[in-house]
Amino acid sequence: MNGFLPSGSTRLFPVVGDPIAQVRSPGAITRILERRGIDAAVVPMHVAQADLPRLFDTLLAVRNLDGLLVTIPHKHAAVFACATLTEGAAFVGAVNVVRRAPSGWHGDNTDGRGYVDGLAQNGFAVIGKRVLLVGAGGAGSAIALEMLERGAAQVLIHDRDETRRDALIAKLAERFPGGVTRGSADPSGFDLVANATPMGMQPSDPLPVDVSRLQSSQFVACAVTKPEVPPLITEARRRGCRTMTGAGMFDAQAEILTDFLLEEDMKTAYRGTC
Amino acid sequence: MNGFLPSGSTRLFPVVGDPIAQVRSPGAITRILERRGIDAAVVPMHVAQADLPRLFDTLLAVRNLDGLLVTIPHKHAAVFACATLTEGAAFVGAVNVVRRAPSGWHGDNTDGRGYVDGLAQNGFAVIGKRVLLVGAGGAGSAIALEMLERGAAQVLIHDRDETRRDALIAKLAERFPGGVTRGSADPSGFDLVANATPMGMQPSDPLPVDVSRLQSSQFVACAVTKPEVPPLITEARRRGCRTMTGAGMFDAQAEILTDFLLEEDMKTAYRGTC
Repeated sequence: MNGFLPSGSTRLFPVVGDPIAQVRSPGAITRILERRGIDAAVVPMHVAQADLPRLFDTLLAVRNLDGLLVTIPHKHAAVFACATLTEGAAFVGAVNVVRRAPSGWHGDNTDGRGYVDGLAQNGFAVIGKRVLLVGAGGAGSAIALEMLERGAAQVLIHDRDETRRDALIAKLAERFPGGVTRGSADPSGFDLVANATPMGMQPSDPLPVDVSRLQSSQFVACAVTKPEVPPLITEARRRGCRTMTGAGMFDAQAEILTDFLLEEDMKTAYRGTC
Repeated sequence: MNGFLPSGSTRLFPVVGDPIAQVRSPGAITRILERRGIDAAVVPMHVAQADLPRLFDTLLAVRNLDGLLVTIPHKHAAVFACATLTEGAAFVGAVNVVRRAPSGWHGDNTDGRGYVDGLAQNGFAVIGKRVLLVGAGGAGSAIALEMLERGAAQVLIHDRDETRRDALIAKLAERFPGGVTRGSADPSGFDLVANATPMGMQPSDPLPVDVSRLQSSQFVACAVTKPEVPPLITEARRRGCRTMTGAGMFDAQAEILTDFLLEEDMKTAYRGTC
């Protein structure tokens, strides 16, 4: 048999989620690690939210385990399992990856970078552009922050939860005065229309924007990975728009996550007994 | 790339030990699982003894993790992390594999079966035979019990730790009166000379028996896996004896361990939050 097989010296990077069967990182990131010549694997761990703090704490004692990936619904709870956070993760209040650091787990959030890198790889640069972003949750916060940091001219944010929307706008406005304000479901006039909500995963979901107003000059992106082509993307393509699906975001993100997991502070701290 | 890659639905069977890099089960048993059409992997977890109870307890909450393999030096401590034990594991006081059961981890000890199956596969049946067994620790206890259960005529046990030796003989004699007594380093007259100690792993180790008295009609077996051919086996082969190395024991054991891990009670109990 060819290909990857674990050995006694394989290092582990679990991905924690609930459910877990849908995650693509075990295959995709294990393959990237192998391509980089590293004997390590991403393996799934299906765990309920209430068990997350204990799991993170216990896994600090596993010496060949230097980091974890975090997926739905644990990205928020994982913040509290971290000893330190990157500025971006602290701003967003959500973590999608942690690695071993001297004081415990060090958490980051790469969702924004993955999304904006994915857009760039699909031919859309955010610098100087007007963006309508739907969703002010963890993913939306990370994406909005990253777009503004990379020079988007203006980001308008739309969310049915108005309290959440206004809180995110207020936080972003402190750092980017004039760069962010309220949006609506009307996509008219934007260079980019970006969905960062789960809307589109269920057949009964409403569309995140009024697709009848889309123009072929607009770029439309959607973070949903299942179905592979969600309804927003189908409608956008029907109107001649360029598009990016959740897979585009995922592919860009996989390399970013691998880089973070392999960074150098990872082998220095063991809370477990030596 | 061909071969195994983990996916979101891969089930995990960690092997815990300290050190861990030398274990062969991740490759060997993952391959057996794949051959049986099961999407599951054995992955190494390097953990210190003091962290073992917490790790076992926490991993009960991981829903795609249905069992663990246990290697040196954790086989004794793992007994106390089990809710239930097989009769053999309870007798030996050591566990080398656990699987999920309704009340928690259910532990077994397959070292004896692996050793005696390995002997059979190498052409030596213990039934009716006289055996000199060196080592009254966990492995030695499991092997002595299994040999007597499979009809060995007599097992003589030798151990430099006389208290341990006599305790094992007393325990075995209750179940097999007349079948077990004290041995020495003199291998004369036995059908099988079996080493169940780590003697032979270090170049400075003494030989477990007086090899100058070995005869070509005798079968000599050694549980040491590193080096692949330990000094006892080299000396026995030089004298024309048939032999079995630690690899012979390991290969027979791998199938037994896989069978145990996949048995049916494994998916019924989650101590974690649902």
